[in-house]
Amino acid sequence: MVDPKLEQVVQFERRRPDVQGDAHPKKLLRAIIEDGDHLAKLASQHIYSSDQFDRPTLLQLFRLAAKYEANPDRFSSSLNGQILISAFYEPSTRTRLSFESAWHRLGGDIMSITDRSTTGIAKGESLMDVAEMFNNYGDCVVLRDSQESSVREMMEALRIPIINAGNGTDEHPTQALADLYTIFKWRPDLLTDTPGAPLNLCLVGFPAKMRTVRSLLKLLCYFPEVFSTVTVVNDKSCSDMFAPGQLEQLEQFGLTVNTSDDLEQVLPDADVVYINAISWEGDSFKQYGKKYHLDASSPLKEDAIILHPLARGEELSTDLDGTHHNWYFSQARGAVFLRMALLTCLVKRAERVLDVI
Amino acid sequence: MVDPKLEQVVQFERRRPDVQGDAHPKKLLRAIIEDGDHLAKLASQHIYSSDQFDRPTLLQLFRLAAKYEANPDRFSSSLNGQILISAFYEPSTRTRLSFESAWHRLGGDIMSITDRSTTGIAKGESLMDVAEMFNNYGDCVVLRDSQESSVREMMEALRIPIINAGNGTDEHPTQALADLYTIFKWRPDLLTDTPGAPLNLCLVGFPAKMRTVRSLLKLLCYFPEVFSTVTVVNDKSCSDMFAPGQLEQLEQFGLTVNTSDDLEQVLPDADVVYINAISWEGDSFKQYGKKYHLDASSPLKEDAIILHPLARGEELSTDLDGTHHNWYFSQARGAVFLRMALLTCLVKRAERVLDVI
Amino acid sequence: MVDPKLEQVVQFERRRPDVQGDAHPKKLLRAIIEDGDHLAKLASQHIYSSDQFDRPTLLQLFRLAAKYEANPDRFSSSLNGQILISAFYEPSTRTRLSFESAWHRLGGDIMSITDRSTTGIAKGESLMDVAEMFNNYGDCVVLRDSQESSVREMMEALRIPIINAGNGTDEHPTQALADLYTIFKWRPDLLTDTPGAPLNLCLVGFPAKMRTVRSLLKLLCYFPEVFSTVTVVNDKSCSDMFAPGQLEQLEQFGLTVNTSDDLEQVLPDADVVYINAISWEGDSFKQYGKKYHLDASSPLKEDAIILHPLARGEELSTDLDGTHHNWYFSQARGAVFLRMALLTCLVKRAERVLDVI
Repeated sequence: MVDPKLEQVVQFERRRPDVQGDAHPKKLLRAIIEDGDHLAKLASQHIYSSDQFDRPTLLQLFRLAAKYEANPDRFSSSLNGQILISAFYEPSTRTRLSFESAWHRLGGDIMSITDRSTTGIAKGESLMDVAEMFNNYGDCVVLRDSQESSVREMMEALRIPIINAGNGTDEHPTQALADLYTIFKWRPDLLTDTPGAPLNLCLVGFPAKMRTVRSLLKLLCYFPEVFSTVTVVNDKSCSDMFAPGQLEQLEQFGLTVNTSDDLEQVLPDADVVYINAISWEGDSFKQYGKKYHLDASSPLKEDAIILHPLARGEELSTDLDGTHHNWYFSQARGAVFLRMALLTCLVKRAERVLDVI
Repeated sequence: MVDPKLEQVVQFERRRPDVQGDAHPKKLLRAIIEDGDHLAKLASQHIYSSDQFDRPTLLQLFRLAAKYEANPDRFSSSLNGQILISAFYEPSTRTRLSFESAWHRLGGDIMSITDRSTTGIAKGESLMDVAEMFNNYGDCVVLRDSQESSVREMMEALRIPIINAGNGTDEHPTQALADLYTIFKWRPDLLTDTPGAPLNLCLVGFPAKMRTVRSLLKLLCYFPEVFSTVTVVNDKSCSDMFAPGQLEQLEQFGLTVNTSDDLEQVLPDADVVYINAISWEGDSFKQYGKKYHLDASSPLKEDAIILHPLARGEELSTDLDGTHHNWYFSQARGAVFLRMALLTCLVKRAERVLDVI
Repeated sequence: MVDPKLEQVVQFERRRPDVQGDAHPKKLLRAIIEDGDHLAKLASQHIYSSDQFDRPTLLQLFRLAAKYEANPDRFSSSLNGQILISAFYEPSTRTRLSFESAWHRLGGDIMSITDRSTTGIAKGESLMDVAEMFNNYGDCVVLRDSQESSVREMMEALRIPIINAGNGTDEHPTQALADLYTIFKWRPDLLTDTPGAPLNLCLVGFPAKMRTVRSLLKLLCYFPEVFSTVTVVNDKSCSDMFAPGQLEQLEQFGLTVNTSDDLEQVLPDADVVYINAISWEGDSFKQYGKKYHLDASSPLKEDAIILHPLARGEELSTDLDGTHHNWYFSQARGAVFLRMALLTCLVKRAERVLDVI
């Protein structure tokens, strides 16, 4: 090696920070009793909305995700012979690679579409005809499209499962599953018979416009006893911060929802701070709540964790990356294992992995 | 599940309609006696034109396709260790995914090129140099290019097989193979010693301009006794409906070819109706014969089947999808198995699958 | 087959010319004694610059590449369960497919990014955040970017290895490794105790601007006894033909470097002629040295070999392709095996392949 400085530059450590290790997933794994029947049901369902789940199914999905995360190299042939059609008509690298990594880690093959303009859709082909094509070519579809209605149209013709990976401003249910999985990975006690104190959730975002926020709020409804309060922080007036019916649904399930435009005031009581500044609208995005941001000097509770669906902008400072508040990297990592769990169930391979361990 | 309506929306059935089941491929499988020698020959041939086949080779290809279609999960490792270079310089999702699905179902790996502008060709690299690169990187090439001459130029330098997956307005032989495979899947008796009545084929399209039609007409020449008449329907005058020599070739092989501009008059006698409205010319497409279309009220023969290379436009109404005339979905599905058969032969793996069953 | 002329056109031979066979790699394999420790070190290093190697590591890499090239079908599951992130933000087909072919031949899976505009980077995401994403999704990254600094930025956050596959005008170390591997494949005696005559290297190119040339010159420093002279041919004045420090580095390691603007004068003494005319600058390329070109009438030494990183332009005539001077095709082919060797080490699978044979 010519240059000792260069030697230092090219060296790297494979060690992961602790929150991304296997201690937390193992705790979550032990907190939930395995019950495969709830996962078997998923084999005949598309994944369209956070509304479609029930509590026991969610718990079993989290359990399977934790099993995968605790044993990342143990299930590498579970999806052998299965083909994923990864159709990202709205371009995305992060979500696409998360799904593709999940599928590959289980041994499956992938066909990717990363550009709507090269497809027959651009030339007027109907989405139902595209769906019929997918029936013949693959075993599962992941779709992202800026049109809210596309996934529904495909569902009408599909005989293989499809996952909604973001449909316009509507929903992004697997992101929400990953969010909630992270919270329970951090606090598995909340799912046991002797739960600790419930959580104050501070949600910096725009429920009416952000699909990640919409899908997460819906999932919270299955766990009202876990969340003492949900405080939505934004600078919008209440009248359009929520879409019609959105606030009512939350309250109907017993959640206490507050709103605020003062983040500094909400932070000191928050156990979980979820922050997002981007909303996908049509073929571009808008930023909301630019006045809010988190950094190492924010008045965070001592043991609070921060979640962010990523990619981030200025709302989340990198000076938090090295702190114990950073659970957003664990959240991104866990999303792969959560998706592995879901995909396994959709293609009817759950029974192959449930008896292991 | 929150909402019973939603529960209904996300549920789906995996069951396939009957024409796409395994009864038909099994019948075709039994109608042809296995003879691997004809397939072995393909291991040293590029697939360039429908003209290059002979009748026994076609029959063996159809037989192997039928074997795959009747046992779709049985050959998932036949192409292990083989790499396909999927080069779609003219963008296409349907044909690309059909080939890639075929390759993946046999256990092979794939490298895709979906955009000519990212390649050295855009910067002046010769196709022969690209072909030399492909020699080093993969085991088989599938090429679509809007230039008619590209596949020939690559063939000069390739030491691995290439498949012409559409070269301008010239040919698309694997589509034609899939078309004919569908017809024999529907009527395997035509290949036995006790064939039923031969077929009247109605072909709505433009032989001089459409590569799918050109390649199909050439394949018909190997089975003149199967097709009593071929009636080409279009609103063009005969003088330019066919390319020079095209009609002569058909007649030389004993086919009776008629032309008509009146679809309603031709339909009542047609056993097979093939319809296509699009011709790929340069980097875009043109539509021909807009006045012709099929729907559930068309005067179809009771047991006639409809074929379409897809994607479709207004020429083929979706109200036919649920009828027994719909063999175009089976045709799209069968194209995967036909391509599996062809690809297996090209990379010298036929002997691995011929003794199974 | 209808047409005997067509039969001839579609037939092809799989046989490879001799320089691309296994005789040369076998000779190189025997010339180097296996010592796995040097390869084991690579498991904790990014591959960033030609400067980072040492001579024994290079020799072991060449040995492993030669083992792969001599037994191309023998290691097809060495990377099972490993995922490559192939990120070509600067579009490239040749280098991308070379890496992807290498990875697939060892049984690994791949996720490709072929267009920077579809990524979060285009929307302002930091490269460190992208790197953190890659940590979670894959086991190894290959990056090409027109920005010189991108790979360094990612290295700061990566806990999996990254390979610099071309960063602006700076470096392209794996191309240089493949170049040198080719030279030793041709003349393995140079690495033995009884070496033949050392080599005169003629390098037609622009060291200050071409990343392939820069990386190659750095590698020559590890083998000063092998190269009697290095003569750089270009029409630039010496003052800017080299970047600051570049010439000094070469001379410090004991290389005799000459410059010339007269190719015809240099050729008769050159054993190895390396030629390249393209420099990648920003998002496009420039051509240098248009007045220089090689063809079958060039005054080449009887047994001289020609290397070219490809793709080529007019500087290298195709009339040399069929001559024994053509080692550029062997160089392109060998690059796959060299990359296989490097990738195996980076993902800690070297011990799986070292004891074979």
